Amino acid sequence: METRPQTPTLDRVRGPGDLRQMSDGTLARLAAELRDEVISAVSHTGGHLGSSLGVVELTVALHAVFDTPHDKLIWDVSHQCYPHKILTGRRDRIRTLRQEGGLSGFTKRAESAYDPFGAAHSSTSISAALGFTVGRDMGQDTGDAIAVIGDGAMSAGMAYEAMNNAGHEGRRLFVILNDNEMSIAPPTGAMSSYLSGLYSGPMGLARHMAEGFEAALPGPIRDHARRARQLVTGLPDGQGTLFEELGFTYIGPIDGHDMSQLLPVLRAARARATGPVLIHCCTVKGKGYAPAEHSADRGHGVSKFEVSTGTQAAKAASAPSYTKVFGQTLTRLAERDPRIVAVTAAMPSGTGVSQMAERLPSRVFDVGIAEQHAVTFCGGLAASGLRPFAAIYSTFLQRGYDQVVHDIALQNLPVRFAIDRAGLVGADGPTHAGAFDVGFLSALPNMTVMAAADEAELARMTATAAAWDEGPIAFRYPRGAGEGVPVPEQPESLEIGRGRILQEGEHVALLSFGAHLGECCRAAALLEERGLTVTIADARFAKPLDTALIRRLARDHRALVTVEQGAQGGFGAMVLHHMANTGLLDGACRVRTMTLPDRYIDQASPAAMYADAGLTATDIAATALEAAGMQLTTAP
Amino acid sequence: METRPQTPTLDRVRGPGDLRQMSDGTLARLAAELRDEVISAVSHTGGHLGSSLGVVELTVALHAVFDTPHDKLIWDVSHQCYPHKILTGRRDRIRTLRQEGGLSGFTKRAESAYDPFGAAHSSTSISAALGFTVGRDMGQDTGDAIAVIGDGAMSAGMAYEAMNNAGHEGRRLFVILNDNEMSIAPPTGAMSSYLSGLYSGPMGLARHMAEGFEAALPGPIRDHARRARQLVTGLPDGQGTLFEELGFTYIGPIDGHDMSQLLPVLRAARARATGPVLIHCCTVKGKGYAPAEHSADRGHGVSKFEVSTGTQAAKAASAPSYTKVFGQTLTRLAERDPRIVAVTAAMPSGTGVSQMAERLPSRVFDVGIAEQHAVTFCGGLAASGLRPFAAIYSTFLQRGYDQVVHDIALQNLPVRFAIDRAGLVGADGPTHAGAFDVGFLSALPNMTVMAAADEAELARMTATAAAWDEGPIAFRYPRGAGEGVPVPEQPESLEIGRGRILQEGEHVALLSFGAHLGECCRAAALLEERGLTVTIADARFAKPLDTALIRRLARDHRALVTVEQGAQGGFGAMVLHHMANTGLLDGACRVRTMTLPDRYIDQASPAAMYADAGLTATDIAATALEAAGMQLTTAP
Repeated sequence: METRPQTPTLDRVRGPGDLRQMSDGTLARLAAELRDEVISAVSHTGGHLGSSLGVVELTVALHAVFDTPHDKLIWDVSHQCYPHKILTGRRDRIRTLRQEGGLSGFTKRAESAYDPFGAAHSSTSISAALGFTVGRDMGQDTGDAIAVIGDGAMSAGMAYEAMNNAGHEGRRLFVILNDNEMSIAPPTGAMSSYLSGLYSGPMGLARHMAEGFEAALPGPIRDHARRARQLVTGLPDGQGTLFEELGFTYIGPIDGHDMSQLLPVLRAARARATGPVLIHCCTVKGKGYAPAEHSADRGHGVSKFEVSTGTQAAKAASAPSYTKVFGQTLTRLAERDPRIVAVTAAMPSGTGVSQMAERLPSRVFDVGIAEQHAVTFCGGLAASGLRPFAAIYSTFLQRGYDQVVHDIALQNLPVRFAIDRAGLVGADGPTHAGAFDVGFLSALPNMTVMAAADEAELARMTATAAAWDEGPIAFRYPRGAGEGVPVPEQPESLEIGRGRILQEGEHVALLSFGAHLGECCRAAALLEERGLTVTIADARFAKPLDTALIRRLARDHRALVTVEQGAQGGFGAMVLHHMANTGLLDGACRVRTMTLPDRYIDQASPAAMYADAGLTATDIAATALEAAGMQLTTAP
Repeated sequence: METRPQTPTLDRVRGPGDLRQMSDGTLARLAAELRDEVISAVSHTGGHLGSSLGVVELTVALHAVFDTPHDKLIWDVSHQCYPHKILTGRRDRIRTLRQEGGLSGFTKRAESAYDPFGAAHSSTSISAALGFTVGRDMGQDTGDAIAVIGDGAMSAGMAYEAMNNAGHEGRRLFVILNDNEMSIAPPTGAMSSYLSGLYSGPMGLARHMAEGFEAALPGPIRDHARRARQLVTGLPDGQGTLFEELGFTYIGPIDGHDMSQLLPVLRAARARATGPVLIHCCTVKGKGYAPAEHSADRGHGVSKFEVSTGTQAAKAASAPSYTKVFGQTLTRLAERDPRIVAVTAAMPSGTGVSQMAERLPSRVFDVGIAEQHAVTFCGGLAASGLRPFAAIYSTFLQRGYDQVVHDIALQNLPVRFAIDRAGLVGADGPTHAGAFDVGFLSALPNMTVMAAADEAELARMTATAAAWDEGPIAFRYPRGAGEGVPVPEQPESLEIGRGRILQEGEHVALLSFGAHLGECCRAAALLEERGLTVTIADARFAKPLDTALIRRLARDHRALVTVEQGAQGGFGAMVLHHMANTGLLDGACRVRTMTLPDRYIDQASPAAMYADAGLTATDIAATALEAAGMQLTTAP
C-alpha cells in the first residue's frame, strides 16, 4: 500500500467555503496538496489523470473566487473534475472513482449540488451556462455561471453556436478557456493554430486585457499587463481577438498554474463583468507529475499506477481489442484499395485508425471534435469517388445523426461507419454507453447495419463494408478485448443480409445480434442442462434482416428470443416488425426481445453492467424457458 | 395565363458551357432574363423565391467562371437553386418545381450531374466541398469545389467545424459567403453582427483583398480596391478577419449583384488560389422583384402569385394550422406560468413561437440555426428552474439528438420538445420528412413521447407538457391545417401514459398514434361496410405506453393494427416489444404495424405522399382484414 501524501491544508477543507477564508499563499499550498491527492487517488482507481492535473490551480482559484454552488461552475467534458470533487465534499469517496457503486468519473447532478450540469461529451458547457445565466436574469435563485472548456472542445461546432448566441445575448457570463494545446490527441484544426498564435512568447502575465478589467488589477500586475500587451505578436493594441469579434470580452492569456495570476484576474473579472467574458488560461496537461507530463497523451487516461514511477499496472494478457482488430484490418484493406480513406473526430487512437495513419498518413483525417462535419465530409469524399470509413464511437455518432440521415442515407452514399464502443462500456458509465445506434440507423432507408459477434466477425464485417459500394453501411462492436478467436488475415466479405446458425436444436432459438453471442452460447448450455435443445443463430445484420433465417427459426421452434447489446427499438424491433407484417407472429412460436432496459446503467465492469441490465446467460435462459412455457427454478 | 417573359439570351443557353462563350455584357443581360424567368416560374409553382432572386448574378457568374459540372458547385440548403436549375438543363421542367413528379425544390444528385451534393438542411456545403477537394487531391476525376453558403447558415456549428478543418487542411477550396443579412427570419447571433461590421459604408468594390488576388484584377478595379480598403472602418490594412484567423484567404465584401465585380473577382480567385478562399458577397434577398424585396421575409417562401402585383393566391379557408394552435396555447400557458420560456433555432414563425414573442418578447429566444446549442441551452434553462419549450421541427431535431440524449434525457431535465412537421410534409419532400423522431426519442430512458391526433389534442398535449415537471417530454404534430375541431381555450392536462378509446367494436382494433387517427376512422367505416365492428383507439403516448389499453385491445379482438406517421422502430415497435415481453403476442390476436415504408417518399401533397407510403384508409382496412383472416376484395 502506497503512503498517502501529507496534506495538512487540504485536511482542513470541508467545502469550498473554507477556501474563501484562506490567504492567497495558503491557496497556493492547498493547490500543491490537492495535486498530490489527485495523483494518489488516481493511482488507485485509474482514470483521467492528465486533465485533472492540468486544472488543479484553476479549480482552487474558481472555488475561492466564486460563490459555488450558488454560482454554477460547469466543467466541459468534466473528466477534469477530480480536484473539484475532492474540494466539494467527495474526498472521502475519491478512491471509488469510476468503480462500481463509487463516484462517477464525470460531474453528475445526482451526486452533488456542486455539479449543476453533468457532462462527458464535449462542448456543452457554454450552452448550459448561458441557460443558467438567463435563469438568473429571469429571477431564478442562481448566481453567476462559469463554463470551463478546453481548447480541444472549442473545435466542436456546438461551442461556436453557444459563443455566437452568448455574444448576441450580451449577458454576464464567464467562459474559462483551458488551453493545453491538447484534446485527447494533439490538437488539430485552424482554431488550434489560432490559439497558439495568441501566446507566441513565453507565458507571462495577462497580456491582453480589456481596460475595465485592467483597472481592477493590483498595480504591479496591471503595469506588467499593459507593457506586455504591446509585445505580443499579432495582437496590437486595440485589435480584437476572434472571441471579441463574437461579442466576448477577452482576457489573457494567463498562466493557469500561477495562483498569483489566476486569483487577481478572476477577482477582477467577477468584480467588473457586465457581459460575456472569456478568460484564456494556458495550462499543461499532466502538470506537476513528470510521468504524465512526459507521456505522449499527457496521462489522458491511465490504469492504476505506482506513484513513484508512474508505471501503470500491466493489463492481464488477453485477446487483442476489437479496436485493434478493426485498425489492423482496415489498414490491410486500405493498402489494397487506394480509394479507402479514414476519418476520425479527435479519436485516432481510440478508434484504431492511428494504425492506418502510421502506414498511410495522407489517407487518415482527424477533423477534431466535430462529428457533424466528419460525417458530411465523408459524404463529400464518397461522392468524389473515394470510400471513406467514418470511425466514430456509438455515443458520439449521435452528434452526427442528422448528417447520417440527410447527407449519407438519403443520398445513398457509400460511407462506411465503424462504430466502436457499442453497448455498455464500463468505467465511463452511462454517458458513454452505445445504446441507441442500432435503432437510429436501422430506421433509415438505404442503410445496412451489422454487429460483430467476435473479433473475427469484426474483421469480416470490415471487409464487407470495404466491398459494399451500393450505399452506406455500418458495423458495431464493443469496447475492450475480443473473445480470443483467430482473426483471419484476409477476411472474406459476408453476404449482405445473411446470418448464420451456430448450432441447431428443436425447442428454443436464440437469435443474437452482436457481441452477446457468447452469452447466448452460455445460456444455451444452461437450457441444455434442463433437457431442451437450442438453436443458436447469429443475425449479423439488423438491416437488411435475414428473413429466411427468421422464418425458419419461427417455424421450427417453440420460442424465439432475440438478444442484443442495445436499447429497445433496435434489432429486436426490426425482427418483430418483420414477423408481425409477414404473419410470422400469428404462429405458435413465442417471441421475446432482450434489450438494454429502459433506464441508464451506472458504471461498473461491463459484465456487472450487463448483469444489472438483466442480460446474463441466466437471464437469457430464463426468458427462453418462460417463453417455452417452463421456468428456470434453480440457478445453475 | 400570364405572359412568359422575353428571354432571347437565356433561350440560347443549353447548358453552362454556353455561358463561357459569352461576353461580360451578355452575361449581365442573361442574369436579368434569368431573374424574370425565376419570377415567372415561381409564380406558377410557389416556392423559395427570395433566396433564388438573391443569387441570380452569382449563379451566372459561377457557371461562367468555373467548369461545372467537373468543378463541383454546392449550394448550401439549396432552396436558392432555381436559377441554377434553369441554367443546367432543367428549364423545360422548371414549372414543375416542388410538384408531384416534378423537379425537387432543392438540389438532388439523382436529378442532375450539376447537383453534386444535395441539401435542404443548412450548413453542410463546406464539409461536402472539402470532401470533394480531398478527392481531387487524391486523384479522383473532379475539379474545384465551391460551396455557396448564406450568413444565416454560418451560425450553425457545423459550418464552423468545416471552416476549422478546411483552414487546417489548407487545400484549394472556394467558399462563397452569400451575405443577405437574413436567414429565414432576420438574423441573430454575434456572427451576424460581425458580418455587418465588415461592410459599414455603402457597398462598393472589393475592399479587402489579399495581395495575390489583387494583382490578378484588371487595373481600374485593383486601384479602386486598394484605395477603398483603407476606408473601411474596423478593417485596417493588414488586420485579419475572423475567416483569416481560421486559415482562409478573405476577399470582399463585394456586391453580389454587380457582374462587373463578381466576374473579375471569381476569375482572380480561380486563377490564383492555392488554399482555402472565402469570398464575401453581399446580396439582397428578393433582389429585383419589388413585392419580395418589400416583404418582411423578402419573399422567403411564397404561394403561387400574380407577377404584376405579387399578390399570392389566397389559401382556401380551412382550419387553423397545428403550428398556430401550438403558438396560441403556449402563449396562454406562458401568461399564467412565468417559468415558461421558448427557444427556437431560427424558426420563430415556422414553429409558432413568434406568437408568444409578440406578447412576451423577453421569454422567447431565437438562437439562430443552432439546434445543438438550442437543446442544451434549454437544459441549462431547465436546471436553473425555468421550464423551456424547445420548438424544433422533427427533421431538425436530428441535429440536436446527442444533446437530447446526453444533456436532457440522461439528466432527466424538464425540457418540453414541441415537434412540428412530424410525418410527411408535402412540397419540401423527403429531406424535410419528420420520420424518425418517435423511434429516436422513445428509445431514451426518462423521455415521455406523445403525438397529437388533432389540433384539440395538440392543445391538450401542450398543456400536459407545461404541467409535467418530472422530466423531458415531447409531443409531435404534423404540418398544415388541423382537422377543424374546436380547440379548447383552457385545455386540460392529459394523464401521462393513458390513451383513449373512440369507439368500441368486436372484431378488429385500430390503434392510432398521432394525426392518422382520421384515416383510421375512415378505415373503420370501410371495415364496417364489410360487416366488421371496429374499435378505434388513440394511443396518445408512445412512451410510456398505455399498457392496460393494449392488453384490453389484444384480449378482445381478432386483430390489432397500429398506425403512425413515422418510420419503423417507433410507436409500433414499442407496442410490439411490450406485447412480446408480457406474453400478449402469445395469444390469438394478430398484430400488424403500419409505418412509413423503408424508402424515402418524393414530394407531392401530403395525402398523395401517404398514399405512396401505403397509409390510406383503404390500406389500413386491407391490413386489418388480412390480419383478421379476410380480404378486401373490392375497393369501396
